[in-house]
Amino acid sequence: MIKVGIIGATGYAGGELVRILISHKDAEIVWYGSKSYINQKYSSVYRNMFQIVDAECMDDNMEALAEQVDVIFTATPQGFCASLVNEEILSKVKIIDLSADFRIKDVSVYEKWYSMKHKSPQFIKEAVYGLCEVNREQVVHARLVANPGCYTTCSILTAYPLAKEGLIDMDSLIIDAKSGTSGAGRSAKTANLFCEVNENIKAYGVATHRHTPEIEEQLGYASGQNVVLNFTPHLIPMNRGILATEYAKLKRNASYEDVKAIYDKYYGKEKFIRVLEKDVYPETKWVEGSNYVDINFKIDERTGRIIMMGAIDNLVKGAAGQAVQNMNLMFGLKESEGLELVPMFP
Amino acid sequence: MIKVGIIGATGYAGGELVRILISHKDAEIVWYGSKSYINQKYSSVYRNMFQIVDAECMDDNMEALAEQVDVIFTATPQGFCASLVNEEILSKVKIIDLSADFRIKDVSVYEKWYSMKHKSPQFIKEAVYGLCEVNREQVVHARLVANPGCYTTCSILTAYPLAKEGLIDMDSLIIDAKSGTSGAGRSAKTANLFCEVNENIKAYGVATHRHTPEIEEQLGYASGQNVVLNFTPHLIPMNRGILATEYAKLKRNASYEDVKAIYDKYYGKEKFIRVLEKDVYPETKWVEGSNYVDINFKIDERTGRIIMMGAIDNLVKGAAGQAVQNMNLMFGLKESEGLELVPMFP
Amino acid sequence: MIKVGIIGATGYAGGELVRILISHKDAEIVWYGSKSYINQKYSSVYRNMFQIVDAECMDDNMEALAEQVDVIFTATPQGFCASLVNEEILSKVKIIDLSADFRIKDVSVYEKWYSMKHKSPQFIKEAVYGLCEVNREQVVHARLVANPGCYTTCSILTAYPLAKEGLIDMDSLIIDAKSGTSGAGRSAKTANLFCEVNENIKAYGVATHRHTPEIEEQLGYASGQNVVLNFTPHLIPMNRGILATEYAKLKRNASYEDVKAIYDKYYGKEKFIRVLEKDVYPETKWVEGSNYVDINFKIDERTGRIIMMGAIDNLVKGAAGQAVQNMNLMFGLKESEGLELVPMFP
Amino acid sequence: MIKVGIIGATGYAGGELVRILISHKDAEIVWYGSKSYINQKYSSVYRNMFQIVDAECMDDNMEALAEQVDVIFTATPQGFCASLVNEEILSKVKIIDLSADFRIKDVSVYEKWYSMKHKSPQFIKEAVYGLCEVNREQVVHARLVANPGCYTTCSILTAYPLAKEGLIDMDSLIIDAKSGTSGAGRSAKTANLFCEVNENIKAYGVATHRHTPEIEEQLGYASGQNVVLNFTPHLIPMNRGILATEYAKLKRNASYEDVKAIYDKYYGKEKFIRVLEKDVYPETKWVEGSNYVDINFKIDERTGRIIMMGAIDNLVKGAAGQAVQNMNLMFGLKESEGLELVPMFP
Repeated sequence: MIKVGIIGATGYAGGELVRILISHKDAEIVWYGSKSYINQKYSSVYRNMFQIVDAECMDDNMEALAEQVDVIFTATPQGFCASLVNEEILSKVKIIDLSADFRIKDVSVYEKWYSMKHKSPQFIKEAVYGLCEVNREQVVHARLVANPGCYTTCSILTAYPLAKEGLIDMDSLIIDAKSGTSGAGRSAKTANLFCEVNENIKAYGVATHRHTPEIEEQLGYASGQNVVLNFTPHLIPMNRGILATEYAKLKRNASYEDVKAIYDKYYGKEKFIRVLEKDVYPETKWVEGSNYVDINFKIDERTGRIIMMGAIDNLVKGAAGQAVQNMNLMFGLKESEGLELVPMFP
Repeated sequence: MIKVGIIGATGYAGGELVRILISHKDAEIVWYGSKSYINQKYSSVYRNMFQIVDAECMDDNMEALAEQVDVIFTATPQGFCASLVNEEILSKVKIIDLSADFRIKDVSVYEKWYSMKHKSPQFIKEAVYGLCEVNREQVVHARLVANPGCYTTCSILTAYPLAKEGLIDMDSLIIDAKSGTSGAGRSAKTANLFCEVNENIKAYGVATHRHTPEIEEQLGYASGQNVVLNFTPHLIPMNRGILATEYAKLKRNASYEDVKAIYDKYYGKEKFIRVLEKDVYPETKWVEGSNYVDINFKIDERTGRIIMMGAIDNLVKGAAGQAVQNMNLMFGLKESEGLELVPMFP
Repeated sequence: MIKVGIIGATGYAGGELVRILISHKDAEIVWYGSKSYINQKYSSVYRNMFQIVDAECMDDNMEALAEQVDVIFTATPQGFCASLVNEEILSKVKIIDLSADFRIKDVSVYEKWYSMKHKSPQFIKEAVYGLCEVNREQVVHARLVANPGCYTTCSILTAYPLAKEGLIDMDSLIIDAKSGTSGAGRSAKTANLFCEVNENIKAYGVATHRHTPEIEEQLGYASGQNVVLNFTPHLIPMNRGILATEYAKLKRNASYEDVKAIYDKYYGKEKFIRVLEKDVYPETKWVEGSNYVDINFKIDERTGRIIMMGAIDNLVKGAAGQAVQNMNLMFGLKESEGLELVPMFP
Repeated sequence: MIKVGIIGATGYAGGELVRILISHKDAEIVWYGSKSYINQKYSSVYRNMFQIVDAECMDDNMEALAEQVDVIFTATPQGFCASLVNEEILSKVKIIDLSADFRIKDVSVYEKWYSMKHKSPQFIKEAVYGLCEVNREQVVHARLVANPGCYTTCSILTAYPLAKEGLIDMDSLIIDAKSGTSGAGRSAKTANLFCEVNENIKAYGVATHRHTPEIEEQLGYASGQNVVLNFTPHLIPMNRGILATEYAKLKRNASYEDVKAIYDKYYGKEKFIRVLEKDVYPETKWVEGSNYVDINFKIDERTGRIIMMGAIDNLVKGAAGQAVQNMNLMFGLKESEGLELVPMFP
């Protein structure tokens, strides 16, 4: 039984880690870290867990935690994990960081987009970018995994095979993404009140959203070139779900079957990626509560562009589910253990 | 492995049966009945099931089905199950009927409220009302289970211990219930369009809703007297969930502790009923996707009334989950098998 | 042109006052008070008002304000208006208070339910309870109007004619009310975040909500007896709207026509109260954005009860619209001036 | 007083025409056409209109109507208006067609995208494309106005000044649009049920949506070149509102001030177009219920692209509001008459 500690267990991503791990047959949560709720019953913060989780919230003490658990999930604000991790801790425990601290290999890019000094750049190189379908082998041997962002998971996986195969002009790539409101977190802000979000849609972080360099870096590795793109997130009046609609010029003529074959080459055996049937487009509701990524595409011969679409549950494949998938890989478990969650509809 | 057939697999309750049974380790669905979608892939109707369910929809042939399966779930309109069931079928297969056909023991009451002739009244007496926490022993030995309605499950369980112990004046009982829109089914009606339901609330079926006599009959058994009450359902702009707010006069002085002790007496050992902590009131989101019933109460000394509140997921404990709970009991399985679903929040 | 000052112009009720008064042909807002946003453009707080309102937010200075305006609306927390009002101010300006400070005539009841000392009890007697359809004549001559609460407006008007005519047993009256989330205000609280309210319903303030004594007092005046009742509010995932479902025993046999005649007697000539056609029940969407109250009832002969239902827009008839209706009466304008708002559907 | 007839008065756009025209001081609706509801009270179809509209629904008889009214609005399916209009009718009455029949000047383009034969191509040339801010002068003298589509109004106006001034590379233009569900109409389809739309987002009509050629034609006129672009609509779980996010390469270096000056040149005096302040992006809620278009942009120097964003209420500026704006122009009334609707928030 793998002993698990969660730091930041009372945010939405932390809550989803608990929901998933509670039913995981090889893992056991022994530390529900939440500085804001120390000594309070976890189930008084998330009452869906009443009579399911009996534990109280603990402090964010990573050193103490490293003595007691096999793996630490940090579902914390940017900068937190980087400020605490050190060689001694990493020698005792594996870390899966759900923040952005170790996602970006170029520390200057991180420091520019996140407007903060990186506290432990010495671990950036070692850290594995935990997008399982792309970096599976490295994840298996990692001590420190940088769990990808929600928008980035969806954005990258939707375009990855075509970037990798050189089918699309990377300079023409535009990603228009739409997210449910749980992505904004659980802190009390006027802008996230029900009455402000409901019956409304807006773009935000236009040309400045922090997930941009993460997407660019990863699609840069895939395509073997420097990638600079437009990424525009939008806030949608729903709890969960991200839909990415991506536009790119085709570099050569390609039929539906050609493109489908490329997607199948990369994803045909992937349990959690479903390339949909022709002309069936992803909907976030079809993946809600599950670790699936639903993907499809449409070639527009009039414009010479391909429109790629991907949908995930931002809290599962976009955060907690992918983190558990990484844990499974790191501990030699079945990759889908605890993640055979059937999407809930309606 | 129990072989399962579902008639009406493409309604919302049928879809939820599939979601739950897919992960049930002792059951296997072998017949996805849906007259409207015969020969179409089930996953083309519910695309959340893509790459999970490969089967096609079948006809509603109960006789053929009885040869092939161990249990039939009928998630069909009123009158359907009663029109097809017969002794030969019941000798071969167990039936769990999610419609109202066998819920009401007094056939004249059924015929009056449902405005239809009952097609097989000879089975009404045998049929067990499948409210597991109340009729567990009878369910174990049943061939034919009448799975309770969604509003009724919530309404009855919320008041049951106090009715049973004679603490409340049954003539004073008023049930004001609120339901998500999946309770209205998946058929295309203008009144259930997004724009008609969203940003709106209304009462409907005032003083005439068909779940009324079912609640009255069961609370009549519990209290040992004839019960006539007001039940008012309301439509809420959300997908899932029922909240019942119930009002009754206390027949004698009772403290919080007295009432809590009564609830604990009946529900203290029930896995799926959670009596909440003092002054914490049920919210439908805390049970979403799960088989839980969350219950609590407040004594109002000013008026001498007690306000009881209960919340369920109408598609799980209010339909498919309870049906599987009944199946587990009927086949000698662990009662919670396949039902250890952690509520999803948010 | 009536000069208007609003204190608390950046709450949801304050915002609605602005929306309505902007189109009022005899009134002009000259003071947008909002302590939290002093010197900021009003339209930077409510961007729907961009290029419509050019003013900046001002301090909450009631004395200065009294020199400049003809009427002050206080859309402020409880206790604020009572702490500032004095004879000198009232000699210069009319006040319409949207808080509870002057709604309850029995100061000890106010102090008990609101847990605060009343700062100017000497004005309670003078203050007119501004439920226009009930107290029209007194409003006309008032200096200080206590604008009714949202739940109370809906709850009282729904039952008023039957209470007044002695048709219902006031001891049996139960009010189960449901409100959209704008009623919770615009302050940043976790419980009001989109993800906490959406797809959820709960009761709150059970047997303790502060609108209870206000309803009891007014229905007490109507029925000529002391009224103690149950009032239970619920939070609904929608922006606007209140639906009250009310239950009471009929004191004597009454047909549909009898009851309809009573409603028509009181409301037949009221522009803003619509008694719906037989068996058509109120829906909040049908009054959204307007000053209407939609009311109907159903007699349940089985239980001897009548179920009364009323719907309003909580921000209009439940707050700002009624406040403007009061202003119109106080200044001798056409009562419906600025309030001929057609409900918006969908 | 202008006499108005509406054909298709019971669809959502028709209902919105009624909402707006009821408060229009120079117009009077004398014919509520609705084939589906002939002889039924209009207010029994839209109960928000109870006691406001007393009329019954009439047949779709355009010839009879032409005798009785000054202007006919056709809020009907494609093909309807073109099949009935003729010279005699046009000699008696002005027509504002809310369908696509006369929007596209190239009849072969119309017939290809709409898969139907055009029944009266002889009027296409005469028909004026009723985008008031662009074609104001022609509208003034028109007998037949083709009222623009909802997506197209938003998409065109957002990019128009930059297309007109040649600032953007028209071949690079991509429009990613998001619409509330009222755009899907009021007919009963499973895909538009509350439970299917709520908590969900999807793209649809990818590379094939019929508003594409309309946008291309109009932006072609503006830019003076043939335009072929990508337009992708998405369905959002809200009642009203369209947000268009548009991406294009800048053809030359341009600062924020340069671009702002261009927008101001075209829209600075337009009452219904609000170019927002720097870094404030449009939100659909800020225009809900009103005839405003909110627009803004962001230059991304990294990619050399400009991101333009526009928001409208699809039923107002995207349909009924613009139709009334056209009527005002055609009859020499104040352009904003009846349209000074303040956006409703929340």
